[in-house]
Amino acid sequence: MNLFDMSLDKNPANYVSLSPLTFLKRSADVYPNKIACIHGGRRITWGETYQRCVKLAAALSERGIGKGDTVSAMLPNIPAMFELHFAVPMVGAVLHSINTRLDAGSVAFQMDHAESKVVFIDSEFADVMDVAIKEAKAAPLVVDVKDESFSTDTPIAKIEYETLMNEGNDDFSWSLPEDEWQSITLNYTSGTTGNPKGVVYHHRGAYLNAISNVITWDMGSHPVYLWTLPMFHCNGWCFPWSLAASTGTNVCLRTVLPKTIFKLIKSEKVNHFCGAPTVLTMLINAPKKHKEGIEHNVKVMTAGAAPPASIIQSMEEMGFDVTHVYGLTETYGPCTVCAWHDEWNELPVDEQATLRARQGVRSVMLDDLMVADPETLEPMAKDGRSMGEIFMRGNNVMKGYLKNQTASDESFKGGWFHSGDLAVWHEDGYIDIKDRSKDIIISGGENISTLEVESVLYRHTSVMEAAVVAKKDDVWGEKPCAFVTLKEGEEVTEKEIIDFCRENLAHYKAPKFVVFGGLPKTSTGKVQKFVLRGIADDI
Amino acid sequence: MNLFDMSLDKNPANYVSLSPLTFLKRSADVYPNKIACIHGGRRITWGETYQRCVKLAAALSERGIGKGDTVSAMLPNIPAMFELHFAVPMVGAVLHSINTRLDAGSVAFQMDHAESKVVFIDSEFADVMDVAIKEAKAAPLVVDVKDESFSTDTPIAKIEYETLMNEGNDDFSWSLPEDEWQSITLNYTSGTTGNPKGVVYHHRGAYLNAISNVITWDMGSHPVYLWTLPMFHCNGWCFPWSLAASTGTNVCLRTVLPKTIFKLIKSEKVNHFCGAPTVLTMLINAPKKHKEGIEHNVKVMTAGAAPPASIIQSMEEMGFDVTHVYGLTETYGPCTVCAWHDEWNELPVDEQATLRARQGVRSVMLDDLMVADPETLEPMAKDGRSMGEIFMRGNNVMKGYLKNQTASDESFKGGWFHSGDLAVWHEDGYIDIKDRSKDIIISGGENISTLEVESVLYRHTSVMEAAVVAKKDDVWGEKPCAFVTLKEGEEVTEKEIIDFCRENLAHYKAPKFVVFGGLPKTSTGKVQKFVLRGIADDI
Repeated sequence: MNLFDMSLDKNPANYVSLSPLTFLKRSADVYPNKIACIHGGRRITWGETYQRCVKLAAALSERGIGKGDTVSAMLPNIPAMFELHFAVPMVGAVLHSINTRLDAGSVAFQMDHAESKVVFIDSEFADVMDVAIKEAKAAPLVVDVKDESFSTDTPIAKIEYETLMNEGNDDFSWSLPEDEWQSITLNYTSGTTGNPKGVVYHHRGAYLNAISNVITWDMGSHPVYLWTLPMFHCNGWCFPWSLAASTGTNVCLRTVLPKTIFKLIKSEKVNHFCGAPTVLTMLINAPKKHKEGIEHNVKVMTAGAAPPASIIQSMEEMGFDVTHVYGLTETYGPCTVCAWHDEWNELPVDEQATLRARQGVRSVMLDDLMVADPETLEPMAKDGRSMGEIFMRGNNVMKGYLKNQTASDESFKGGWFHSGDLAVWHEDGYIDIKDRSKDIIISGGENISTLEVESVLYRHTSVMEAAVVAKKDDVWGEKPCAFVTLKEGEEVTEKEIIDFCRENLAHYKAPKFVVFGGLPKTSTGKVQKFVLRGIADDI
Repeated sequence: MNLFDMSLDKNPANYVSLSPLTFLKRSADVYPNKIACIHGGRRITWGETYQRCVKLAAALSERGIGKGDTVSAMLPNIPAMFELHFAVPMVGAVLHSINTRLDAGSVAFQMDHAESKVVFIDSEFADVMDVAIKEAKAAPLVVDVKDESFSTDTPIAKIEYETLMNEGNDDFSWSLPEDEWQSITLNYTSGTTGNPKGVVYHHRGAYLNAISNVITWDMGSHPVYLWTLPMFHCNGWCFPWSLAASTGTNVCLRTVLPKTIFKLIKSEKVNHFCGAPTVLTMLINAPKKHKEGIEHNVKVMTAGAAPPASIIQSMEEMGFDVTHVYGLTETYGPCTVCAWHDEWNELPVDEQATLRARQGVRSVMLDDLMVADPETLEPMAKDGRSMGEIFMRGNNVMKGYLKNQTASDESFKGGWFHSGDLAVWHEDGYIDIKDRSKDIIISGGENISTLEVESVLYRHTSVMEAAVVAKKDDVWGEKPCAFVTLKEGEEVTEKEIIDFCRENLAHYKAPKFVVFGGLPKTSTGKVQKFVLRGIADDI
């Protein structure tokens, strides 16, 4: 025992659990009259938000909900969804956000697996939820969240949100978790194969990742943030808590429509929003008249599928400042960022776009990141060529998968989180994703990165969206097959597409088949490559 | 045991100790070529800084320095002092920063109390240190830090800093502390009475407070920070670690001279600095020609003695954006901030200055703050009148006092840190310090805040500095006595000062005596009121 280990213990004055709940309390104390949430004509202050969360927590507590209980939510990006991010953990319960695009069977599976005690439902999803609740073994209390902008009743609900909240005491005394490792939320992976896995977050990670967002993205005080990203997606990448930490304003959004997005950017002076590349594509292709009249700086964070450089370039040309990030549900959303270097501003625009499309470096609060051999965990050379798997380590890596020790153990093997994504490491330490390990095409023993082929397709002026998958081949093992959605009014032949790729890629990487039409997507906007692989094999 | 407690444990992939060392590593990895330190003509990058710290840590480790050992430093704000904030904790040792204005006896006391194993010395302080080392029982390894801008040799040193560093291996494998509660630094209080107390910080607190600075002060990425605040003072309020978190630039400064400060602000585009009100007074009273030509925004953070509103107003008039904070050595430096509200911009300038002079609200990462009865810990009314003691709670409250369980227990009594400062709480929750509990004047049973009287004195156009203390009085118990330093060339009588105070204060609060001359100060720039009280009683 050394000098500094003696009589210098933790006590209530010098040790407090890290929890994003402290951010809400501070915003309410310091800026009670600042606007926390805007939803249509509704304006809710931070003082009111805090009071509403306390009352809702009290009501949940009175109904027996407490530590370790699951509270589910099938809600769009409305104020109630934001409030649940605080009210539920105030009683020690765990918020389970359900992807609003899921089918009844999947929802029932999740509610049963999570042993859901309460479920909050927006009437837009009443039909699906009606079936899901009947199908599920769990018998949660069903709460209807009425939203002025979507006014149908939910026939299955036992009680309405505001009524439940009003059961609660104004002066309910909630407390921080005794242990910051306590679970705060549960998010199911989209699960392209088999049953989805339940990713569990804790208070410590939520607190740190909320702050990491603010610092890594340089959000400043009082950002105005538009909810283009679903809050059910990795808890909106932890932004509900980032907004509380920076006392910002949440601008709610039920539906992602370019016209509405541009309108809100102008009327509410939105200066931050996040979105998958598909959202950016929608904005880029929106009529010019919607885009006119934005006179302030807008910062966009994008992740999801790696956005082709051309999308980033188009956004920048529209005057939006794009930050490219990358992460997984298992890492609380984004955990790497393509941190910008001032000297890159001197480069030609297309080179800038290529640099900006890299997944980059660890965000401020991820502790370690590497591209390594999936078997030996030996780091790959930083040569921009040697492909390996991306591994992370840090406080914003999940606790594990709920009731799935095997999957947890596998994903943490060797003391690193295994992302399943394949990347190279550039000389400057920036990572560049080449593919999901299951998406890579192996043709005649050569690896073909589907992302590389897609990024060439995106450069074709007629192409709006593109996805490339492997098609089984007796001779080559696999061959690349492209699925392409054309921009409105454009016409182009399969041969033209293939020729364009051959001009811009090594010939063996060019697709051998091109299918035109819409792309099937998961509820989070990711292209369902397994569906495309099925189609490709049937050609 | 609930659902969420099962098989969701900590492992190396999802739990990493919070430590500011991770910030240095990230800055070096992501921005190796950005400038970390500027000292005169010297420019050191983040990559070099990291490499230098690793080598120094290796050298310390090879000489047997490790976990829980004390490494002392008697250094001005030069690059070596910055590097020690990382190199020392890299081996698990504790950095003990010595106030460079201390006398040999006090230094010897600290080195013995801290059981110092190594001491780094700048030759400016060689004479004092020579005596101190001879006087001390501890026999630390003495290291001379040579600084180009101050080139005398230190006769007592065994080895020079760069030579020691070069003993170390480039590829030394340092590690984060296993427990983030591990001690990182030791800072002695100025100790106006009795022996100073050794305040111990830990890695977790240093990490969180570094981030709290960045967010609370809205520092953004890559700030350029001028070292007007001594790094030996609460580890420069944790800014060495904040600069690493934000990959900023440290502009070093051996001596606080207004001319140099203005020169560096212009030449290095400094946009952030901290300083006690005395530093601000120096800047305000500097010749006009030095101040001209600053064309960028400069943010100033000030604390220490509460700055009279007039000082803040003058700084704002010079175009500097002043943030007023408050804290103690025990709270890692500032832990409250006078958070600004946009609507205050509409108020008259003098009202703004009064608002800005309040100590404000808890910073983003202090968990709780209250003004309460020192005995019962009952919170005072938020009425702007009821005076109580300031109490804090949070992860940026010290571990405790080294080898002083009694003092630690007393300061943490009731689960709150007892600041010893007296304040009122305004209706909006902002605190306003009225005095140190030992400084308050009680005259005829009425409390007189010496700060209130001082702030009136500062409004007198001839007054440069002022301090008010109690003078013993047989009839009234105590009476206020003022000590005043006049601006150059100004002349004013005792009666004029007293009359001015009576015009602007309740009569019983006006000083009954005025003494003209310089003010005695502690090494951290605080007025030594105990010295003044002695003089006052002898009048």
